[in-house]
Amino acid sequence: MQAIDRLIAKIEEKNSCVCVGLDPRFERIPEEVKKPIKEKMGETLEGLAQVLINFNYGILEAVEPYAPVVKFQISFYEQYGPAGLKALIESCKISREMGFEIILDAKRNDISSTAKAYADGYLGKVNLWGREEFIYDLDSMTVNPYLGKDGLEPFIEVAQKYDKGVWVLLKTSNPSSGDLQDLTLASGEKVYERLALQLQELGTNWCGESGYSNLGMVVGATYPEAAARLRKMLPRTFFLIPGYGAQGAVAAELEHFFNPDGLGGIVNSSRGIIFARKKDGEDYKSAARRAVLKMKQKINTIRGGRT
Amino acid sequence: MQAIDRLIAKIEEKNSCVCVGLDPRFERIPEEVKKPIKEKMGETLEGLAQVLINFNYGILEAVEPYAPVVKFQISFYEQYGPAGLKALIESCKISREMGFEIILDAKRNDISSTAKAYADGYLGKVNLWGREEFIYDLDSMTVNPYLGKDGLEPFIEVAQKYDKGVWVLLKTSNPSSGDLQDLTLASGEKVYERLALQLQELGTNWCGESGYSNLGMVVGATYPEAAARLRKMLPRTFFLIPGYGAQGAVAAELEHFFNPDGLGGIVNSSRGIIFARKKDGEDYKSAARRAVLKMKQKINTIRGGRT
Repeated sequence: MQAIDRLIAKIEEKNSCVCVGLDPRFERIPEEVKKPIKEKMGETLEGLAQVLINFNYGILEAVEPYAPVVKFQISFYEQYGPAGLKALIESCKISREMGFEIILDAKRNDISSTAKAYADGYLGKVNLWGREEFIYDLDSMTVNPYLGKDGLEPFIEVAQKYDKGVWVLLKTSNPSSGDLQDLTLASGEKVYERLALQLQELGTNWCGESGYSNLGMVVGATYPEAAARLRKMLPRTFFLIPGYGAQGAVAAELEHFFNPDGLGGIVNSSRGIIFARKKDGEDYKSAARRAVLKMKQKINTIRGGRT
Repeated sequence: MQAIDRLIAKIEEKNSCVCVGLDPRFERIPEEVKKPIKEKMGETLEGLAQVLINFNYGILEAVEPYAPVVKFQISFYEQYGPAGLKALIESCKISREMGFEIILDAKRNDISSTAKAYADGYLGKVNLWGREEFIYDLDSMTVNPYLGKDGLEPFIEVAQKYDKGVWVLLKTSNPSSGDLQDLTLASGEKVYERLALQLQELGTNWCGESGYSNLGMVVGATYPEAAARLRKMLPRTFFLIPGYGAQGAVAAELEHFFNPDGLGGIVNSSRGIIFARKKDGEDYKSAARRAVLKMKQKINTIRGGRT
């Protein structure tokens, strides 16, 4: 099954378009997760990696009923070097076994054979002494469009081969996203609007049976007016929507991100769910489960009247 | 010493502004490097990683007299997961011991705490159970500007703290780089020209004693006309110049990238040096040394008359 159809099937199954961002910040992980590992493995890099895995496992179990998708922000793993990547791969394996769709938020970008090396690693297979093997085996990944079409095509080609998806940054959620993305062109369009059309062309022949494209785009929850325009321009594009919760956007502002069919977007929250507990001693898993249920319900009220 | 002054000191010492790109493609690495490792470690991921390290070591020894800088394209390592990152870290350690300035070509980009996680990992220190430790400890890294100022500042802040540098993508070397970068704005400027001014402002208070900024920019050798304009706009900016050799640019086209002082750029070549040997059986190290010497001489003829 193509990536976008698989994603939609999971959204329908759980009646939820919530994506949980597994961006574990070690210093915020509860002591009760750290303590047993510290006693067993000491204050080592390997111990730290095991803390990330165990914490993620707790969150994954907690959010499983209400979230069809998880997103891993790779920076919080690769900053710890090889041990961090081991934690990422192990966490992805657990996510897969539990049935989640898995997005890697890596924002990678490069050209020709270099882009292909990223795509082979994360979405496809790499050549190990003549054998083709999966290393990460994720469902989709985010990429940055600054290099233009030939920086995106290698990702698309590998994704097509292995039924994976690609999410291209379009209008990002951060305060300065307009520095480049909102510049007005001689044609009167903004940079991100022109990019939207370029990307639509790239993705138009890569649609699933649902009619949605496997080339999704990242549009920040913090820019609802931009989303309203983009939604009209790109009816068959799924949006990956960061910026909900900790970054300030609320559910009512998400209305314009969805199509009348109640589809067309997945909304990510990271800190708002994984660090939902309010005080020491409170169970972080229960707090995460309550937070994701609440988020699912709130967003369902604004997408096609699903509650 | 600040990063840009350290780089210039090494350029002067070797009278060379050649940067060697250590982008090892496993399938192109000579059999004589692979064979002894295969016999000892088998056709494993760890064996593959050891092949990358040994190959890099050979190249580093070969190019040491003529190249002040090496650049690691991280995709060729991280595609192999944790074992690949181990090979990268080990190769960087060898490079440092041999006195090279080390650039990580990662083109990372993200916002606030996520960008800081990248910067801490690659340029600064990460917090391991309360201890602050270097994981990668590189001299500088490439970053992508699509997210705007608040996607760049965390990299700059960490770099400032640890005397490291940052190279921001400006006008990249690939054929489609114009899709976004060359769009004409309402003001008549191109996108990359406007970005150049934004970046200049960010880097202007971050100059070394040489007068050059620690915020460098990536400008492809394949676009000499753009470089001529940018050189005039940005006299105190160092350019990291990819696209020489395998990507088609020749030395004569590099003239406009340099200032009258013979400084202002480092020119990268990867495949043209590390895979310089013409046939099986030829020593890859001698071929790389000849290639880097030739490149150094050619480029010196066009920068301030240094030969």
